[in-house]
Amino acid sequence: MKEDLKHILKSIQAGTLSVEDGMEALKDLPFKDLGFAKIDNHRELRQNYPEVIFCQNKTPQQVKEIINYLATQSVNILASRANDEVYQAVKEVIPEAEYHPLPRMIVVNRHTINQNKGKIVVVSAGTADLPVAEEAVLTAEIMGNKVERLYDVGVAGIHRLLAHKDILRKANVVIVVAGMEGALASVVGGLVSRPVIAVPTSVGYGANFNGLSALLSMLNSCAAGVGVVNIDNGFGAGRLAAIINEDQENNEVK
Amino acid sequence: MKEDLKHILKSIQAGTLSVEDGMEALKDLPFKDLGFAKIDNHRELRQNYPEVIFCQNKTPQQVKEIINYLATQSVNILASRANDEVYQAVKEVIPEAEYHPLPRMIVVNRHTINQNKGKIVVVSAGTADLPVAEEAVLTAEIMGNKVERLYDVGVAGIHRLLAHKDILRKANVVIVVAGMEGALASVVGGLVSRPVIAVPTSVGYGANFNGLSALLSMLNSCAAGVGVVNIDNGFGAGRLAAIINEDQENNEVK
Amino acid sequence: MKEDLKHILKSIQAGTLSVEDGMEALKDLPFKDLGFAKIDNHRELRQNYPEVIFCQNKTPQQVKEIINYLATQSVNILASRANDEVYQAVKEVIPEAEYHPLPRMIVVNRHTINQNKGKIVVVSAGTADLPVAEEAVLTAEIMGNKVERLYDVGVAGIHRLLAHKDILRKANVVIVVAGMEGALASVVGGLVSRPVIAVPTSVGYGANFNGLSALLSMLNSCAAGVGVVNIDNGFGAGRLAAIINEDQENNEVK
Amino acid sequence: MKEDLKHILKSIQAGTLSVEDGMEALKDLPFKDLGFAKIDNHRELRQNYPEVIFCQNKTPQQVKEIINYLATQSVNILASRANDEVYQAVKEVIPEAEYHPLPRMIVVNRHTINQNKGKIVVVSAGTADLPVAEEAVLTAEIMGNKVERLYDVGVAGIHRLLAHKDILRKANVVIVVAGMEGALASVVGGLVSRPVIAVPTSVGYGANFNGLSALLSMLNSCAAGVGVVNIDNGFGAGRLAAIINEDQENNEVK
Amino acid sequence: MKEDLKHILKSIQAGTLSVEDGMEALKDLPFKDLGFAKIDNHRELRQNYPEVIFCQNKTPQQVKEIINYLATQSVNILASRANDEVYQAVKEVIPEAEYHPLPRMIVVNRHTINQNKGKIVVVSAGTADLPVAEEAVLTAEIMGNKVERLYDVGVAGIHRLLAHKDILRKANVVIVVAGMEGALASVVGGLVSRPVIAVPTSVGYGANFNGLSALLSMLNSCAAGVGVVNIDNGFGAGRLAAIINEDQENNEVK
Amino acid sequence: MKEDLKHILKSIQAGTLSVEDGMEALKDLPFKDLGFAKIDNHRELRQNYPEVIFCQNKTPQQVKEIINYLATQSVNILASRANDEVYQAVKEVIPEAEYHPLPRMIVVNRHTINQNKGKIVVVSAGTADLPVAEEAVLTAEIMGNKVERLYDVGVAGIHRLLAHKDILRKANVVIVVAGMEGALASVVGGLVSRPVIAVPTSVGYGANFNGLSALLSMLNSCAAGVGVVNIDNGFGAGRLAAIINEDQENNEVK
Amino acid sequence: MKEDLKHILKSIQAGTLSVEDGMEALKDLPFKDLGFAKIDNHRELRQNYPEVIFCQNKTPQQVKEIINYLATQSVNILASRANDEVYQAVKEVIPEAEYHPLPRMIVVNRHTINQNKGKIVVVSAGTADLPVAEEAVLTAEIMGNKVERLYDVGVAGIHRLLAHKDILRKANVVIVVAGMEGALASVVGGLVSRPVIAVPTSVGYGANFNGLSALLSMLNSCAAGVGVVNIDNGFGAGRLAAIINEDQENNEVK
Amino acid sequence: MKEDLKHILKSIQAGTLSVEDGMEALKDLPFKDLGFAKIDNHRELRQNYPEVIFCQNKTPQQVKEIINYLATQSVNILASRANDEVYQAVKEVIPEAEYHPLPRMIVVNRHTINQNKGKIVVVSAGTADLPVAEEAVLTAEIMGNKVERLYDVGVAGIHRLLAHKDILRKANVVIVVAGMEGALASVVGGLVSRPVIAVPTSVGYGANFNGLSALLSMLNSCAAGVGVVNIDNGFGAGRLAAIINEDQENNEVK
Repeated sequence: MKEDLKHILKSIQAGTLSVEDGMEALKDLPFKDLGFAKIDNHRELRQNYPEVIFCQNKTPQQVKEIINYLATQSVNILASRANDEVYQAVKEVIPEAEYHPLPRMIVVNRHTINQNKGKIVVVSAGTADLPVAEEAVLTAEIMGNKVERLYDVGVAGIHRLLAHKDILRKANVVIVVAGMEGALASVVGGLVSRPVIAVPTSVGYGANFNGLSALLSMLNSCAAGVGVVNIDNGFGAGRLAAIINEDQENNEVK
Repeated sequence: MKEDLKHILKSIQAGTLSVEDGMEALKDLPFKDLGFAKIDNHRELRQNYPEVIFCQNKTPQQVKEIINYLATQSVNILASRANDEVYQAVKEVIPEAEYHPLPRMIVVNRHTINQNKGKIVVVSAGTADLPVAEEAVLTAEIMGNKVERLYDVGVAGIHRLLAHKDILRKANVVIVVAGMEGALASVVGGLVSRPVIAVPTSVGYGANFNGLSALLSMLNSCAAGVGVVNIDNGFGAGRLAAIINEDQENNEVK
Repeated sequence: MKEDLKHILKSIQAGTLSVEDGMEALKDLPFKDLGFAKIDNHRELRQNYPEVIFCQNKTPQQVKEIINYLATQSVNILASRANDEVYQAVKEVIPEAEYHPLPRMIVVNRHTINQNKGKIVVVSAGTADLPVAEEAVLTAEIMGNKVERLYDVGVAGIHRLLAHKDILRKANVVIVVAGMEGALASVVGGLVSRPVIAVPTSVGYGANFNGLSALLSMLNSCAAGVGVVNIDNGFGAGRLAAIINEDQENNEVK
Repeated sequence: MKEDLKHILKSIQAGTLSVEDGMEALKDLPFKDLGFAKIDNHRELRQNYPEVIFCQNKTPQQVKEIINYLATQSVNILASRANDEVYQAVKEVIPEAEYHPLPRMIVVNRHTINQNKGKIVVVSAGTADLPVAEEAVLTAEIMGNKVERLYDVGVAGIHRLLAHKDILRKANVVIVVAGMEGALASVVGGLVSRPVIAVPTSVGYGANFNGLSALLSMLNSCAAGVGVVNIDNGFGAGRLAAIINEDQENNEVK
Repeated sequence: MKEDLKHILKSIQAGTLSVEDGMEALKDLPFKDLGFAKIDNHRELRQNYPEVIFCQNKTPQQVKEIINYLATQSVNILASRANDEVYQAVKEVIPEAEYHPLPRMIVVNRHTINQNKGKIVVVSAGTADLPVAEEAVLTAEIMGNKVERLYDVGVAGIHRLLAHKDILRKANVVIVVAGMEGALASVVGGLVSRPVIAVPTSVGYGANFNGLSALLSMLNSCAAGVGVVNIDNGFGAGRLAAIINEDQENNEVK
Repeated sequence: MKEDLKHILKSIQAGTLSVEDGMEALKDLPFKDLGFAKIDNHRELRQNYPEVIFCQNKTPQQVKEIINYLATQSVNILASRANDEVYQAVKEVIPEAEYHPLPRMIVVNRHTINQNKGKIVVVSAGTADLPVAEEAVLTAEIMGNKVERLYDVGVAGIHRLLAHKDILRKANVVIVVAGMEGALASVVGGLVSRPVIAVPTSVGYGANFNGLSALLSMLNSCAAGVGVVNIDNGFGAGRLAAIINEDQENNEVK
Repeated sequence: MKEDLKHILKSIQAGTLSVEDGMEALKDLPFKDLGFAKIDNHRELRQNYPEVIFCQNKTPQQVKEIINYLATQSVNILASRANDEVYQAVKEVIPEAEYHPLPRMIVVNRHTINQNKGKIVVVSAGTADLPVAEEAVLTAEIMGNKVERLYDVGVAGIHRLLAHKDILRKANVVIVVAGMEGALASVVGGLVSRPVIAVPTSVGYGANFNGLSALLSMLNSCAAGVGVVNIDNGFGAGRLAAIINEDQENNEVK
Repeated sequence: MKEDLKHILKSIQAGTLSVEDGMEALKDLPFKDLGFAKIDNHRELRQNYPEVIFCQNKTPQQVKEIINYLATQSVNILASRANDEVYQAVKEVIPEAEYHPLPRMIVVNRHTINQNKGKIVVVSAGTADLPVAEEAVLTAEIMGNKVERLYDVGVAGIHRLLAHKDILRKANVVIVVAGMEGALASVVGGLVSRPVIAVPTSVGYGANFNGLSALLSMLNSCAAGVGVVNIDNGFGAGRLAAIINEDQENNEVK
């Protein structure tokens, strides 16, 4: 965008672009306007991301229209919180789209991103946390990361976790997915020296209050190096992990 | 009390007690009425407890009047949440009363209870949890228990806890005192096979919300065998531990 | 586990086990890895528990795979929060499994645990609290305890409770199950001298806020000797009661 | 007020009052405007109440100005949440004003209201609830009611309450003041057949959350016939009890 | 009950009742034990109430068994929170039972209670509050009260309420039913001199938080003489109103 | 209404209206009583509003009866939170009624209100906020306002918003509709110098807590000139915007 | 700012400004950087506001440095939440600064803004709400508005409010300041046809929860035309009222 | 630690260490036991951290004893939430300790960590957020990072932030510190492609609820790549940023 801006200003300076047209160009540059949605064309360029569609609260028709537009671009696509009805709508437009029912995600993987990066380890406390954990895994993978799973290692049987300390310590970023009391984030945070992304889940009952218990636990973690994302937000954790895992030389926006 | 009741009924049957007097006797038996307070004389008989005074929200004068009465009985006394002003008032009546400033407790230990019981271990997550932990220790000790302390073994450095598994496993009851994310209760709960009493503390800041974070964690513990008491309620934990630790033959109320 | 550890270290000392194999042995010892779940083989040995499966948030297929593995072991099995679909899946593997619809539990009782223990009394405030109360009863029974029920004795008709004081006082552990204002825990706590485990239920409406009202009441109980478990957590209460009720000589982990 | 309205309308009809003056009269009738406060002259006439000043958040100077005005009327006065500074200001204007430090109330009792009414009984759970209980007592007394106190009868020692069932049952209205788990309201509600006014207090700590625990308990009371007022609102309870206790023939507003 | 007690004690004194039988008699007197429920036979005697069954969280079968028992008694019956399935079960036992779908109540009115009492006025803020308001009306009526409805007079059009001040002022007790901001209770409380029972409803959306908004409003009412019951608790309001409205000479329990 | 009052008073003065009839007239003037609802006839006169029916919690039959009455008046009608069943009931009475499924509103537009007013701009953060945004648009339009939409300009891609600053700045009132973190209200508030009405939506998940997150954000906005309405209350925002946008000379009620 | 932007772009086009300098100019234009604070020079130009300093959480030294800079500009200044220590620091720099202790505001009124606008009426429920009400008054006045006060007209004595309907109806904007149950906003909202800005205050106690009660009430107001600002935010209300009250022709930013 | 473990096991294998001594060695290795605190000697080795002391809830004496021990080690020391009394105690032991009053931190910088890392940018919304922002800055600096400050760029004047996009985009990690509505995190998250650590602060008032508003905003951020730490936890943010900023080759624990 900086280059775009410089180019436009230089064109004005060179007299090849009028001031009025320059102002117009600046307005139209960075997104595609569908009326009900403004698709951010340059986001991938800016942030190395696939285009992501958060399907919850959108009608299948709205998702389809967005997909219609994206189908003309050569980007990878990730649709989260998608049910089967949405998937059928997407498949009409992009037949090769894949559906993962556990994390309820649609993936369109058009070009592999090969990167020489560290490993991301996704740790889950219990079997019931898997939908959120898999959402994180898929998100990180489509952004070109190697991901290793370490599931059902909740703290009530701490030996299950300690038996895999080596996996944890080879990670460049660790994602911890846990519901109930969310204690796993603190324990993992004390075992590794790399960043931990904690994802509270709404798994549990009673005084879990839909994930509040795990959320507060993770925010109050006595271990350092823990950042928290929203309840059940596996996607956000995967994306933050991928960003941390990126080549740091690439960090300046084009 | 059952014996008392039977005796009164038998006296009525025997004609040595009128119905009216019987009804009066039943009313006056079990407590001493000071007007603003009704002291439960027979609680110790019933429950093997020392007399306990919760000083918060009581004036020093009120505490003193209660002490005045108890001084005439031969019971052990425990006054919790007591400040120095209260202690001075108590000392005027019972000079041998001791004050413990960290847990803010006054102790009058008139007769040692020698019991052949298991050990109670009090575990704390951090140094800041000590006032609550010590309140639990003192309470359990005055009820005749052997207590061992295991302090500052929070989960962010899990090796500090694991290095003392042997202490934990010799305990008949474990009290876990932790603030912040309160994860220690779950980890200890997974390591021992005896009952764990979890005490959330208000230690922490921000989204700790005065102990709510640790409280919810402990209630949602994925480990079995964990019972929770109120935030900062070291006294309640010590008492529950003592009750669990009692000779089970003694469990029927006299 | 301590014995296991000593044996492995001794084998290394004796030269019959290499350091590398020793490290591997330590890692693989204590659980069975199904990928999505890590089953804790030695938990029963360690804690005298049946294997327990918390079915909520697990697919019937996942439960079935866990059962498949456990069927090869000779352990007792308890599956909680199970619906009929899950029960059908379990019955295919273990035809003698029983289903209890009120507490929604599946029980596989392979070997009776005969223990010479005290009695556990489960008290409920109202008829609507029965599913949670029965969850506690079944859990305690499968762990070898004698259980007595005392139902519908809520405090609004206190004479119903007082008429059964004798049952309460013969108990070694009392479980109190109550929704709405949860006052029953305090009243029972004042009547007995043995530990009380309080289970708040989500029974009620309006400002009950799904059990919050009873939960806070029980945590703030003015009676001593009360430990609280999560809302609707009959299983947790049954297990904690069973642990307290165990022979105290057995308390050190093998 | 109805009579006032009829008189004004009749004066207009009779031509002795212009429409404009009539509108003005209607505006000025029912209160005295001090600028920062509008004192409701006719409230006592309407509702048989003393004039009440809620002192919290008012400056001593503001209270004094209100008292200055009321001193010219022959009404009884009750000032609640008053500290000593406010009392000194009031005494300058009305030297016979009395101060009750426990409930922090100022009372000016100019004419005794002799009424042939039922008795109001004020019950408190603990000694620490006395300031709120006394606020209720004073309020009911200045409105001409006979009040009996029954203090420190919390449910953890239920026999203390049961021993005084006769006092409860002679009451026409019962006020129950309790903090912590607030269970006393339900138990009393089950014992009497007259209205119970429940006052939660902020007495307690931890998960009491400044009275929320007792408030929710009382709202969820399983006993019928319980109405709840705000946390620590002894005044409101005393006033509601007095209103209920009034001669029902007087219920139509003059 | 007092008479019962005296009689039993006298029989013991007279030797016509053994101590053991006396203790047994005291236990069995006041309720019928169905196992899962303990029906309080003497409640009506004690409190002039119909027998009330709260159907929520009870199975139709459980309700039917309770009805089966009550059918043998000559009491009035009120079943609240009943759906059609429950009603069908009840009708099999008591064909003359009536169902009111709006408040979801079943009424069995076996003997009219004719009382010479004041009037109860039920005021509702909006049309959506009617189910709760009607629950209050039915409850008060079955207890022998004259009830007048004043519906849809919310404060946003205050003239609708002011136009009916005469109805309000003829009431001996006023019940105010309101959701959303619940302001109606304060306005009515300022208009009448008799007790106001405020019922918050869960009507509304967004920051209404299922009735919390109206509940807090009513608890903080700046008008005196307001007692609050649980959210949507029309039954509780009707019952409290009926109790207040009772002949005060009858207040001592037989 | 002022004129009505003056007329009635003058008629009394002139002797053409008795005092009793005058009091009756004052009572019956301002609304139509359907029993379960009191329709405010003069609201449109008073406030230039269409008649609005909030359908949630009303039965289709109740809505139909209200419509039946309104059909005899010549007012514009807006029914919010209406489902198709309600729409079918309305159409039987008023066949030209239109249904808008996204905002779930029924509109009966009988006479166009032509006003020479400023423009209202409705801004939404995401596509999922459209139902609420459209509710605001329809409401403002039926009250005679020109409305411009600016959708899907959430702050995570701030350039989408900045590209349309000119639209924002031509607005006389801006409505900002946003869920999740609700940050858009603050950013827009800093860009414009006209009033901003912020509508939090319940769009989001996890720690959004049904709109609480956006609600708190908007209330704490660091930008000046922001007023907040209830969660998902598009109608309220549209109406407040229309009121602000009105000719200020018209502000005195007739 | 639009003009500034156009000028800079035109200078680049004309070759009198290099691209680099143009980018620099765009960056430095709109604020003064003090390091710890960035003062928004052009805000007044943009929004007709005085410069406002929110003093809470700022050291007196920080406030003084900001004042030092503003003293060189000819703007009006408003400092809110200022204590006397801050005022002394300000007076050293600007001796004519005035301090209003009730709303804790410092005012520097350098040039009167004479505007021909409608009137703003500030209504308060009780005397205790005055600090917040006065904060609103001062804020509106320094922005050139005529303000009328209507204090102590809470809904418990609704006749006090109704007696002043004429004042309310002459207002172009109404600000309603109320604590406790906040019902005043709904009642006023139903009486006027102009915008109402509701300010919840933290006045009250118990279940008021520091203003939450009034806040929720106001957000759930059943009256239309009500916008809510933060608890105790008199300043925000005054500013929003002033913005609404502005000449609508001036609404486009320069 | 892995090396330590291997060494101990090899010594056992070699016969130079008995099994008992090996078990002892494993226990004593990783921390120094002061009784009330267990100092983690190897944490710096493990995680490249300075030793950190959280002073809140610790007595000055306890801090001094910990410092006494650390003074014998050559580590860097950071003491957070320290008041002047604590600082005086520390200075007695380590005279060169520096105190930073704004973030209330004590720093002992014994050996500079020179690292060739990216830059960390700390952004704050307002002047009042500086104490927390500076806590983050100091923490990151003592861990060897270059830090740049960008203060007072809250979203209500978005141009202040946009003017510094270049600073943001040169950052390898961005820390955003904001109170009130916390919107800054989302806006910054949309502008950069590197990880954003969001720190909610308790700055604000009213419905800010001590930082809850900003916390929820940040958790619900619609921008990707945002991880959240506890309210006011500048230290945690600085540490997480430093960990992310580390050379990724160093990520395996020694």
